[in-house]
Amino acid sequence: MLRVGINGYGTIGKRVADAVSAQPDMELCGVAKVSPDYVAIGAVEAGYPLYVVDETRIEEFREIGVDVAGTVDELVEESDVVVDATPSGIGAENRSLYERHDTPAIFQGGEDATVAEVSFNARVNYDEAEDADYVRVVSCNTTGLSRLVAPLEEAYGIEKVRATLVRRGGDPNQTGRGPINDAVPDPVSIPSHHGPDVQTLFPKLDIDTIGLKVPTTMMHVHAINVTLENPPASEDDVRDLLAAQERTIMVPEYARIDGAGTLKDMAADAGRPRGDIWENCIWEESVTLQGSDLYCMQAIHQESDVVPENVDALRAISGHLSGPESRSLTNETLGIGFGGLRDRPVKRLDTQTADD
Amino acid sequence: MLRVGINGYGTIGKRVADAVSAQPDMELCGVAKVSPDYVAIGAVEAGYPLYVVDETRIEEFREIGVDVAGTVDELVEESDVVVDATPSGIGAENRSLYERHDTPAIFQGGEDATVAEVSFNARVNYDEAEDADYVRVVSCNTTGLSRLVAPLEEAYGIEKVRATLVRRGGDPNQTGRGPINDAVPDPVSIPSHHGPDVQTLFPKLDIDTIGLKVPTTMMHVHAINVTLENPPASEDDVRDLLAAQERTIMVPEYARIDGAGTLKDMAADAGRPRGDIWENCIWEESVTLQGSDLYCMQAIHQESDVVPENVDALRAISGHLSGPESRSLTNETLGIGFGGLRDRPVKRLDTQTADD
Repeated sequence: MLRVGINGYGTIGKRVADAVSAQPDMELCGVAKVSPDYVAIGAVEAGYPLYVVDETRIEEFREIGVDVAGTVDELVEESDVVVDATPSGIGAENRSLYERHDTPAIFQGGEDATVAEVSFNARVNYDEAEDADYVRVVSCNTTGLSRLVAPLEEAYGIEKVRATLVRRGGDPNQTGRGPINDAVPDPVSIPSHHGPDVQTLFPKLDIDTIGLKVPTTMMHVHAINVTLENPPASEDDVRDLLAAQERTIMVPEYARIDGAGTLKDMAADAGRPRGDIWENCIWEESVTLQGSDLYCMQAIHQESDVVPENVDALRAISGHLSGPESRSLTNETLGIGFGGLRDRPVKRLDTQTADD
Repeated sequence: MLRVGINGYGTIGKRVADAVSAQPDMELCGVAKVSPDYVAIGAVEAGYPLYVVDETRIEEFREIGVDVAGTVDELVEESDVVVDATPSGIGAENRSLYERHDTPAIFQGGEDATVAEVSFNARVNYDEAEDADYVRVVSCNTTGLSRLVAPLEEAYGIEKVRATLVRRGGDPNQTGRGPINDAVPDPVSIPSHHGPDVQTLFPKLDIDTIGLKVPTTMMHVHAINVTLENPPASEDDVRDLLAAQERTIMVPEYARIDGAGTLKDMAADAGRPRGDIWENCIWEESVTLQGSDLYCMQAIHQESDVVPENVDALRAISGHLSGPESRSLTNETLGIGFGGLRDRPVKRLDTQTADD
């Protein structure tokens, strides 16, 4: 059993904690948190031992009825591996804590790539993490791009990727974030950091990315162009290729899923925990081939697509399962893949409109 | 066993179907739906027999792999009671269908009160539905107001209610609805229909309501003033009274839940199906007494607060359990009440800010 500690119990940390608890080969030692709030209460309700980051605040937790199991130092000491899911930049500050206890750690994509020896995606470079002590799971957007790039590169070769990332302004509980009525170039300089970040996984890939943020909290949406070296005969070949990927959902036209809100509604209907969508969601109609130029649009759930990647990173760093074995076990235990949509016959509808 | 059919399988219908399936004394005969889409596929995945409203579209369902159990006429015939969860106005058109089959029916609050003999809330007038063949569960907002009015009226007497309803523009999957950047008086005439609708349950209540809609999809938020006839000594008495209500959550300051998005995040953390919140959510700090004027703010989840009311309406109309028995069974089977928040000591924080 791999004993896992989670440092940082927010949007990602609480989801990774649940995912780790669902693995037959892992045991959750506990979670560490800074502030006493409803999320801390949720940890207690879930039965997770709660450790404090700041010892001077133990009494604050106790006052709201949250038992404290110890300090983050103690959690790191008793864990075989720690997942650091603290806010961007804090992870780098925490590395010395993990080194002090000689505890390997998984960092998140909000950290600079230099925080770890390896930037990681389970589909792309599982084996590279086996000899590392510190691994960084790339961000939600980079994960989404990499899952799309990998099969296209293998099947057709890629001359160049150009991607526009229309990013959600904040998560549903981040009431202080903007924009509230704008589409904001973010960053205004091009490329955004996402292109170089994808290159931490595909060093030779030619990729430019443009980032914006918009007033939604549901999902990111990517508008993508990939110029292929050896394009297939038909865009249906590309659809079949993408549909065969483990962590990809092809959104069929007949389902009448017209946006991220509808995708989230479907995930809620399917009983997904927290309505999470761990997979890239590619609109099947959007997959279009114009000569060697492939186009498509995909939605990426910022709160959850890196969760299975963290689980796989834990196995990769501890070296006890192969990549295919780990990915398969993760997919099975989390329930990845919308069988309901995937297994149905494809039927195209004629509903295109042009009203703006 | 009460055999229940659901006509209309959208936001409310799919939730009522799940809730009926969870009742030990009910059996779901099936659900009827107009369009083949992801929600229809969800019904199949849930194992619910699917009936078509429009026989000419049977082939469309079959083309996407959805088996059709029959027509809505057949569903109504084999059901002891039908829940009509069709869009506003369609329910009234459907009444003749139910009469033709001599099948009692529950309508939703989008219909005019004249659609049924009784407008219904389980807390307020359960017994009145016992002799009726047609019952209308009042709307989400009216349900939320009525749950608040009932205990205040009983404990202190009410001189007058004045409520401003800041309503969500649409549900998460209603991508075509507005507003996108406005706070829209809706309706601009005062009172809005909500006040008179509350009076279908409390005929003697003096209540004026003002309605607006804003660009959110999460929940409605009500700003409420109730002038009490015999106010208590302290607002803490009111807090205790409201905290004792079955379908009310008092949102404590220490939980740091600052808006509807955060409430929804908490519900997701708690593993609520679809992240639903069946209860009125009253911010504890907002409960304020100024002489005989009581003020508070509450959030109402438009997609789900009427679901337990529909379940109770089914039992009331069929007359086989008392109100307290039905409400208790509904609460238990759905998991109503956030024990995690409710059972903790109250601690007030000093965090008020004034930045706009």
